[in-house]
Amino acid sequence: MRRPAGSVVAMADAAAGPLPSLRALSPAGSFAARHIGPRGDETAAMLEAVGYDSLQSLVDATVPEAVRDRDALSLPPAADEAAVLAELRERASANEVFTSMIGLGYSGTVTPAVIQRNILENPAWYTAYTPYQPEISQGRLEALLNFQTMVADLTGLPVAGASMLDEATAAAEAMTLVRRAGRAKPGAVFVVDADTLPQTLAVLQTRAEPLGIGLHVADLSAGWPADLPEAGAFGVLLSYPGASGAVRDHRALAEAAHAAGASVVVAADVLALTLLEAPGAWGADVACGSTQRFGVPLGYGGPHAGYLSVREGLARQLPGRLVGVSVDADGDVAYRLALQTREQHIRREKATSNICTAQVLLAVMAGAYAVYHGPEGLTAIAARVHRSALALAGWLRAGGVEVVHDAFFDTVQARVPGRADDVVAAAADRRVNLRRVDADTVAVACDETTTPAVLRLVAEAFGVPADDATAESALDDDGPDALPDALRRRTPFLTHPVFSAHRSETALMRYLRSLSDKDLALDRTMIPLGSCTMKLNSAVEMAAITWPEFAGLHPFAPAGQARGYRQLIDELCTWLAEITGYAAVSVQPNAGSQGEFAGLLAIRGYHASRGESHRDVCLIPSSAHGTNAASAVMAGMRVVVVACDEAGNVDVADLHAKIGQHADRLAAIMITYPSTHGVFETDIRDICAAVHDAGGQVYVDGANLNAMVGLARPGRFGSDVSHLNLHKTFCIPHGGGGPGVGPIGVREHLVPFLPGHPLADTGGQGPAVSGAPFGSAGILPISWAYLRLMGPDGLQRATEHAVLGANYLAARLREHYPVLYTGAGGLVAHECILDIRPLTRATGITNDDIAKRLVDFGFHAPTMSFPVAGTLMVEPTESEDRAELDRFVEAMVAIRGEIEKVATGEYDREDNPLRNAPHTLRMLTGEWARPYPRSTAVFPVPRLASRGYLAPVRRIDQAFGDRNLVCSCPSPEAFAEPEPARAPQTSVPDRGEGAPDDLGTAADVVGAGRA
Amino acid sequence: MRRPAGSVVAMADAAAGPLPSLRALSPAGSFAARHIGPRGDETAAMLEAVGYDSLQSLVDATVPEAVRDRDALSLPPAADEAAVLAELRERASANEVFTSMIGLGYSGTVTPAVIQRNILENPAWYTAYTPYQPEISQGRLEALLNFQTMVADLTGLPVAGASMLDEATAAAEAMTLVRRAGRAKPGAVFVVDADTLPQTLAVLQTRAEPLGIGLHVADLSAGWPADLPEAGAFGVLLSYPGASGAVRDHRALAEAAHAAGASVVVAADVLALTLLEAPGAWGADVACGSTQRFGVPLGYGGPHAGYLSVREGLARQLPGRLVGVSVDADGDVAYRLALQTREQHIRREKATSNICTAQVLLAVMAGAYAVYHGPEGLTAIAARVHRSALALAGWLRAGGVEVVHDAFFDTVQARVPGRADDVVAAAADRRVNLRRVDADTVAVACDETTTPAVLRLVAEAFGVPADDATAESALDDDGPDALPDALRRRTPFLTHPVFSAHRSETALMRYLRSLSDKDLALDRTMIPLGSCTMKLNSAVEMAAITWPEFAGLHPFAPAGQARGYRQLIDELCTWLAEITGYAAVSVQPNAGSQGEFAGLLAIRGYHASRGESHRDVCLIPSSAHGTNAASAVMAGMRVVVVACDEAGNVDVADLHAKIGQHADRLAAIMITYPSTHGVFETDIRDICAAVHDAGGQVYVDGANLNAMVGLARPGRFGSDVSHLNLHKTFCIPHGGGGPGVGPIGVREHLVPFLPGHPLADTGGQGPAVSGAPFGSAGILPISWAYLRLMGPDGLQRATEHAVLGANYLAARLREHYPVLYTGAGGLVAHECILDIRPLTRATGITNDDIAKRLVDFGFHAPTMSFPVAGTLMVEPTESEDRAELDRFVEAMVAIRGEIEKVATGEYDREDNPLRNAPHTLRMLTGEWARPYPRSTAVFPVPRLASRGYLAPVRRIDQAFGDRNLVCSCPSPEAFAEPEPARAPQTSVPDRGEGAPDDLGTAADVVGAGRA
Repeated sequence: MRRPAGSVVAMADAAAGPLPSLRALSPAGSFAARHIGPRGDETAAMLEAVGYDSLQSLVDATVPEAVRDRDALSLPPAADEAAVLAELRERASANEVFTSMIGLGYSGTVTPAVIQRNILENPAWYTAYTPYQPEISQGRLEALLNFQTMVADLTGLPVAGASMLDEATAAAEAMTLVRRAGRAKPGAVFVVDADTLPQTLAVLQTRAEPLGIGLHVADLSAGWPADLPEAGAFGVLLSYPGASGAVRDHRALAEAAHAAGASVVVAADVLALTLLEAPGAWGADVACGSTQRFGVPLGYGGPHAGYLSVREGLARQLPGRLVGVSVDADGDVAYRLALQTREQHIRREKATSNICTAQVLLAVMAGAYAVYHGPEGLTAIAARVHRSALALAGWLRAGGVEVVHDAFFDTVQARVPGRADDVVAAAADRRVNLRRVDADTVAVACDETTTPAVLRLVAEAFGVPADDATAESALDDDGPDALPDALRRRTPFLTHPVFSAHRSETALMRYLRSLSDKDLALDRTMIPLGSCTMKLNSAVEMAAITWPEFAGLHPFAPAGQARGYRQLIDELCTWLAEITGYAAVSVQPNAGSQGEFAGLLAIRGYHASRGESHRDVCLIPSSAHGTNAASAVMAGMRVVVVACDEAGNVDVADLHAKIGQHADRLAAIMITYPSTHGVFETDIRDICAAVHDAGGQVYVDGANLNAMVGLARPGRFGSDVSHLNLHKTFCIPHGGGGPGVGPIGVREHLVPFLPGHPLADTGGQGPAVSGAPFGSAGILPISWAYLRLMGPDGLQRATEHAVLGANYLAARLREHYPVLYTGAGGLVAHECILDIRPLTRATGITNDDIAKRLVDFGFHAPTMSFPVAGTLMVEPTESEDRAELDRFVEAMVAIRGEIEKVATGEYDREDNPLRNAPHTLRMLTGEWARPYPRSTAVFPVPRLASRGYLAPVRRIDQAFGDRNLVCSCPSPEAFAEPEPARAPQTSVPDRGEGAPDDLGTAADVVGAGRA
Repeated sequence: MRRPAGSVVAMADAAAGPLPSLRALSPAGSFAARHIGPRGDETAAMLEAVGYDSLQSLVDATVPEAVRDRDALSLPPAADEAAVLAELRERASANEVFTSMIGLGYSGTVTPAVIQRNILENPAWYTAYTPYQPEISQGRLEALLNFQTMVADLTGLPVAGASMLDEATAAAEAMTLVRRAGRAKPGAVFVVDADTLPQTLAVLQTRAEPLGIGLHVADLSAGWPADLPEAGAFGVLLSYPGASGAVRDHRALAEAAHAAGASVVVAADVLALTLLEAPGAWGADVACGSTQRFGVPLGYGGPHAGYLSVREGLARQLPGRLVGVSVDADGDVAYRLALQTREQHIRREKATSNICTAQVLLAVMAGAYAVYHGPEGLTAIAARVHRSALALAGWLRAGGVEVVHDAFFDTVQARVPGRADDVVAAAADRRVNLRRVDADTVAVACDETTTPAVLRLVAEAFGVPADDATAESALDDDGPDALPDALRRRTPFLTHPVFSAHRSETALMRYLRSLSDKDLALDRTMIPLGSCTMKLNSAVEMAAITWPEFAGLHPFAPAGQARGYRQLIDELCTWLAEITGYAAVSVQPNAGSQGEFAGLLAIRGYHASRGESHRDVCLIPSSAHGTNAASAVMAGMRVVVVACDEAGNVDVADLHAKIGQHADRLAAIMITYPSTHGVFETDIRDICAAVHDAGGQVYVDGANLNAMVGLARPGRFGSDVSHLNLHKTFCIPHGGGGPGVGPIGVREHLVPFLPGHPLADTGGQGPAVSGAPFGSAGILPISWAYLRLMGPDGLQRATEHAVLGANYLAARLREHYPVLYTGAGGLVAHECILDIRPLTRATGITNDDIAKRLVDFGFHAPTMSFPVAGTLMVEPTESEDRAELDRFVEAMVAIRGEIEKVATGEYDREDNPLRNAPHTLRMLTGEWARPYPRSTAVFPVPRLASRGYLAPVRRIDQAFGDRNLVCSCPSPEAFAEPEPARAPQTSVPDRGEGAPDDLGTAADVVGAGRA
């Protein structure tokens, strides 16, 4: 093993010619070489393996001429890391971070530095994928279970989901949830209290209208409305506190609603709930809201984790993701996504929600904030916030200003007849934003960051003395507060030990590390998920999102304070429009699913504007992602399925037949390109033209845009609208299952129908689909930076390498596993499908077994059973270098060898390394009577032995957990009482990423699991 | 395992009283509760275990009244995280970040974001300890080996150390190295070329004078000096390029030096070495310099990794740390610190260097930068830098400005008779700093960040046209450059595969993660290192160091651009002076060892100022850290050892005898307080007084200051000077073994002797000890933030909890392991020593076995064999909560049980879990014929089973590596060829932290290993 010390060996003659030029060596453009994995020599070798001599020729052979677009992208040329950071700093400094006391669902908060650094700035968390493979996701699943427990406890409702996209959409989901749960009479309305956040009301209207739900908005302070339609109401939304800040006792109203057969939905402030009795304790069936103020930066509106929790009996109606407790093959407690099968994956056009992502990273942060502060800490923060509001109210009253409400939590509404604009302006002069309610009324929302100094500035703005004595009495230990005694919180919360065990920074840091160590994220392995595009999320792209100038802006701050954001958003939209060939882009949709919905609403609006509201048929190929159908239903359309041929391509004959059948009612076709089978269909232009000829619009699902950037533009080959998944193609990190960002691009005629917003000028006039005007604005610097760093050439090169990577894997693996669905020349696009079914038939070994066995090799599994059950879809992305691709190939070949041993009988069909995978340390060091040695379990291939990851649990029993639904933190004792169980399971990708739609097994689980 | 879904159980009556007051709930002060591990109830329970009813009474019983200081610390009250960040932002914005083209050893550089985020901002790296326990340090050891290989390759010398404190001290170490290696004649001088960095020259002078080394500074461009003293020269320092920027061909000079019996030391620019032939290829015996420009931020002067490399035959003379390759118990390749025993640990007063820390974190970054860029990338960067300088030179010449040197790399010196100040001022107007060489000369240093736009600004400042055509020709691919053809690099470098395998960001991110995953740092376990104080390094304390306003300043930038830094440094020094009771503090020393040296120089200067230069005796108790003696020798003093009693306290009788014996020559006493045995000696005041009475000065080693903050102040109980270890008491992270920061505090009469600097006003007039005026200024915001966050009460509470924690462990472990050296009432100070020797005698199980066995439990070992061989010294710090302390106790008790099984014969004396520890996955899954089950190896105690760490290698053979010295990356093949070996080993803490001084085993290794 030794060699001479020192490694410089005098060599005869190294190349010592003149230096290259400054221009040639400019750092500009160098980032693309870091983003794209293979270096020049590796690219050449990979091309050789695929059988092409250049990227150009490979791409020419892959992308049909019909869609190929050879115009260079008109984007700024690539800039290097330092230059991009400098430009971002310029934009940041064009934002002005005032102290925002605007409230309306968005509050200043202190992100503990330990959480910012160890979650938000840590790739182990932010590069993780959705926890569909639960064995390598126990850390983030536990973090989400903490979140769910926190929400369940605070709201007093037993089951909470793993987060919603924002408060407004959570309220909308609550509306449809209670509607379907309650079997509403036709014509029954949804009652909404007038004291509701304006953006929530807007999104409710957006969502209600296409579904034919009547909204009945009324001031309910006088009681249950008497003027309801005959069919009555199926539900009511109450706010707690209200948008005005008033804390009202809704108990009588809740009783009245229940008596009238209506379910009660309460939009509640999580921080207030530490002081106010839980909605579940006084009649709420459902609670919804935002957890932003639990340490998640404002970010000009998002991303934040919305929440939804429900009473017993409604759990199986919850949309979105739900983490639950189950057991592994040893009967040990283990976590996994519960009831996965109830969502749009299975239901398609019968779906009632298209939600299939969550705001995982933000939910993890909010949950960690609760873990760090615990019940006492949160209560103390709430008390401080409340006392701040009290002190201000005291000053106002002493200064002769009327305080509108006697009972409030954090928001003081003040009557200043005729002076509201002056007060708001005076506050702005002091760099404080207040809310102008109307010409005579100003609201001031206090939060965790409110200091006495800021309160004094507010008093100055109102022109009242900030008298210390008045404040003293408000702040006094024993003084009265402004919370109704009847509503004072009496039920305990956050009693689970996790909320008291990690109070020191050291303890929390270690807890977070221990959680992330259980998981496999991009920082340890490629995640070759077909349709999910787990490419590099570079550190420089992530850098700006935590800068105060981006993180600290309130979404409703005056536009003049957000010049940097507006410029950045404008630039990003312009660049995305250029890439997609559309006329304009809206960034409001904060997930791919919301993008689909917004895009279909634009089509709906367009038809209506032409007097063709009757056009309501949406054609969807049978190979489409399930979300497509769900979105169409939400947009008020009828889904008509178009058949696909056995290669996964649209059956053009059937398409023409369906068009003919529905021509006058044809609203749209939704089609994914390249297809969900990873192939560039050659007929796409004809398909678009046929739909247009019949008066319909074309929606191209942008899920696979990463295979087209720089090569083809949907807006030019026939599409009218697309959503883009910024977390896929444009480097927003997956964050363990969110945030997603789902902008839509539209052609000129649809521009007027882009999303608008009740409180801000977004440039669109359509209905609002998200709570914040610009959606998840806080993370848009990531995609902006990616585009700026890559430049047009880099982007195209990335696409070409994505295609090369997929074809390289197909070429290397083809002799071991059949590759399904290739296009011209046997080529795939940016992903390839490995058909495991023949092996399964021969040996019983399933794609699931292979996926779990990959864990023993330190790899994350590819996408399972999407779009075809029994297959694995592999998408390497452009970011993986050849070494990692080769390691993956080596692992897959080794696994193939193990399957062969099952086939030949050398391995038992049940007791073999594949079936038993993943192997845990406890298993490896325990009794061992298996027909293969322990070393085979974890050192299957010498070269792969050092990846250093062991799954913390054995294979998880999905069905057990669905039958025995537990969705909050299990008691510590649970870990001592294993129960044996085994059951089939599934693992599927989420939306904005491609997901399965025909999982027989999963559907069975639904049948078994649903009460 | 199940419990009802949902966790809110309606409970009869929670406390629902009025809210506490705003004042009571102020967030101010809340940080201390995060920094200090135990919460109120835990503190109470721990006190009970120790037998006291309050922290107050425990402290009263622990700290002798003689030193106790009950004055409250006059420091600003605690501020919360947000407020501290806001104040830091204020100070940051008071700095102005100009483009610095000053050069002089400090260059602008681009820290790749992937390196900043995944190393500098990642606690897995920055909270790691010095890799004395190599089995849990393989990641950082590999990273350091990369650094060493990089330096060895670039300098063309086979052995490089694991980094030096800075370039100036590296040059000084080189001087003393060649002096002792060459057996210099008495009176032989060290020749220094005049074209040397001014701060290097200053530090050489500082270091040469007390040792009686004559410096002969001369312009060597004409050849070897003719006017040397008769004894000749033992060495020469050449710069390559020179401080002026000139690139000279030193080959003839090197030959002449060798012919004259002098060793050749070359201070070389690592980036230039990619284009210029390696010094080792043309005659250098030693190379030194800085690796700052390899991606390490300027940070107003530091910390950066200096380097030192040597030719064959000098390796064993290298000061500081050296990583080497060895083998583990399976014969597999493994890394560890090589030749540890040659340093001051063993040699004490015979030591020739007191260096015992390194700049590990910065060396890791520089090494990662080389891994990321590889040889081609580094060469390209160097070429771009050079071409930039060329372009500027072209413009200057075309504009009629004389360019002084024909051959240069990055620095252009221009003759502008009488105009230098004007040119510098004109550049400053353009926010560019140039260097005024003299009234007629300006130097401009280009670097990686230099853009054409900046070059144009420089041309404007000189008043020459920035003519594109001239630039074109300079930048031209084929154009000539300004490098002498004879010096063009021909030897290859960075040929090891590690420098080409991780070129994509994805690959580097994963490589860094894989390295850090091999290591145990504070983010996974307590590191209960006695004397090393591994307390929390909080995220908020770390936040500011990467802000551009702190990271981007050149150390020689005009003071007016560093107002924020100066304010922060002034505040920090004021606070540290208040805490220690001194009149003033200097932050220049960039390690504890340098602080010792600077403090002793202050004493030396003081005596000289009083005409008492003959005072040269330094009393040092036998229990002292070895560094003390080495520092005294470096400061020109004679060490006289004072005996200690068996409790580790100074033998007062012997002290008086020694004072009497040396009274007229008594210079100082160096004493550690509380003692290295972890006890508050009661006689300290008397000791100080006795020394003062004899005309001596008192140096209290501040290594254990963390046991005194808020309770006692050395400046008040009799000490004249102390160094402080900011990385211990004041939260600078250990960084895997550096950076250290070693400020000194002095009483009024020593203030004039604090370190000065040739290029900046530091407030001191003494000799410079570091290259940068304010040492490691870039990380001072960390300690500033800690003090600001904690406030006086928090700091005192932290000290009290440190004492409580140590006494709690002593109380819990006493019945299992004897506790050595307790003070009054059987109490220890902030650490306790567990005596393993009786167990070793009875069973053969050593403290080493226990340390390695702790790894299986997921714990980092305590300090071994310091200050007493055969013991473990445990220091929990205030940051560990009770749960972690209890887990440690549980582990230690379980280990005691295992030792008992050895004692009773239940376990074989050689083949048992202790001797075989740590256990690796390969071992656990391989053949197993051991007399205990595999599960015992890694699941010894059920509750500790989930810590999730397995050592990547088995126990490492230290001696093998020392006998077979390999200090650069082993070839990949090495990993396939294990060699069996076993040998005793040691593991010791580093300085500024306490280290052993009497390791018999280690000394034997020296004997065996030294050639």
